[in-house]
Amino acid sequence: MLYFEDFSVGRVLHLGPLTVTRSEMIAFARAFDPQGIHLSPAAAIERGFPDIIASGWYTAALFMRMQCEGFLTRSSCIVSPGIDALRWLHPVYADDTLSAAVTVVSSRISISKPDRGIVLSHASITNAAGTEVLTMETTALYGCRYPAPPGGP
Amino acid sequence: MLYFEDFSVGRVLHLGPLTVTRSEMIAFARAFDPQGIHLSPAAAIERGFPDIIASGWYTAALFMRMQCEGFLTRSSCIVSPGIDALRWLHPVYADDTLSAAVTVVSSRISISKPDRGIVLSHASITNAAGTEVLTMETTALYGCRYPAPPGGP
Repeated sequence: MLYFEDFSVGRVLHLGPLTVTRSEMIAFARAFDPQGIHLSPAAAIERGFPDIIASGWYTAALFMRMQCEGFLTRSSCIVSPGIDALRWLHPVYADDTLSAAVTVVSSRISISKPDRGIVLSHASITNAAGTEVLTMETTALYGCRYPAPPGGP
Repeated sequence: MLYFEDFSVGRVLHLGPLTVTRSEMIAFARAFDPQGIHLSPAAAIERGFPDIIASGWYTAALFMRMQCEGFLTRSSCIVSPGIDALRWLHPVYADDTLSAAVTVVSSRISISKPDRGIVLSHASITNAAGTEVLTMETTALYGCRYPAPPGGP
């Protein structure tokens, strides 16, 4: 189990690898983002891509899967209030193998609820060539392993 | 068809409504975000929610669906470089009915590629009670209906 105390500034969590399957990529696009470049090779080629590209929200969802498999479901994570500076930097294709590195940028105990802390991280998702395809700044609240006693420290 | 010129500052696009289905909400969580609060009513109740809550990425994907159905697949949209200030403000539950309002905040022609323009919008997704569940700032490039001639203006 990972608790707030484990997310020390500078710690890097390495996630994945995970290979993008064409069928799931297309199923996601059909359900949530049915734009031509995500579904039709002809439409993608017309726009200068060699093949269909993943919906950016699919890539974000794959990053969430990597986080859950890598540590999140074995952590004291309470909630995420949001995401900043999400950038889709490079197309993701079927059969791409993605990895992620999550670097803790800052961490502090919650002032209003001292049994938890707030962790800011920078996430970088790369393909097998090492090209960044997605970056974002994440914020999450984690329960403390050793909550400060009331009125403390 | 909506082109860059149609995204005038202050214009509001109203999207939805769309009702969250429990089965799809759970299928998404199983695939991408298998945390207890998204899958197990008991786990959600233990954390103070009356029932399982949607993965935040599912809500974001539903907003993308609303955008595609509302205007995006009938627009000259080229690409989105990213998202800023994404905030999950309130839980989303099965059978919630969501709507969205996308307000154009700024728009300008691309300097390097004057056949397209960059549109920044504020998106607000609300439930049937009018409570904001998700907000974000979106950036997207749209082709111009009337591209400026080379060298001009």
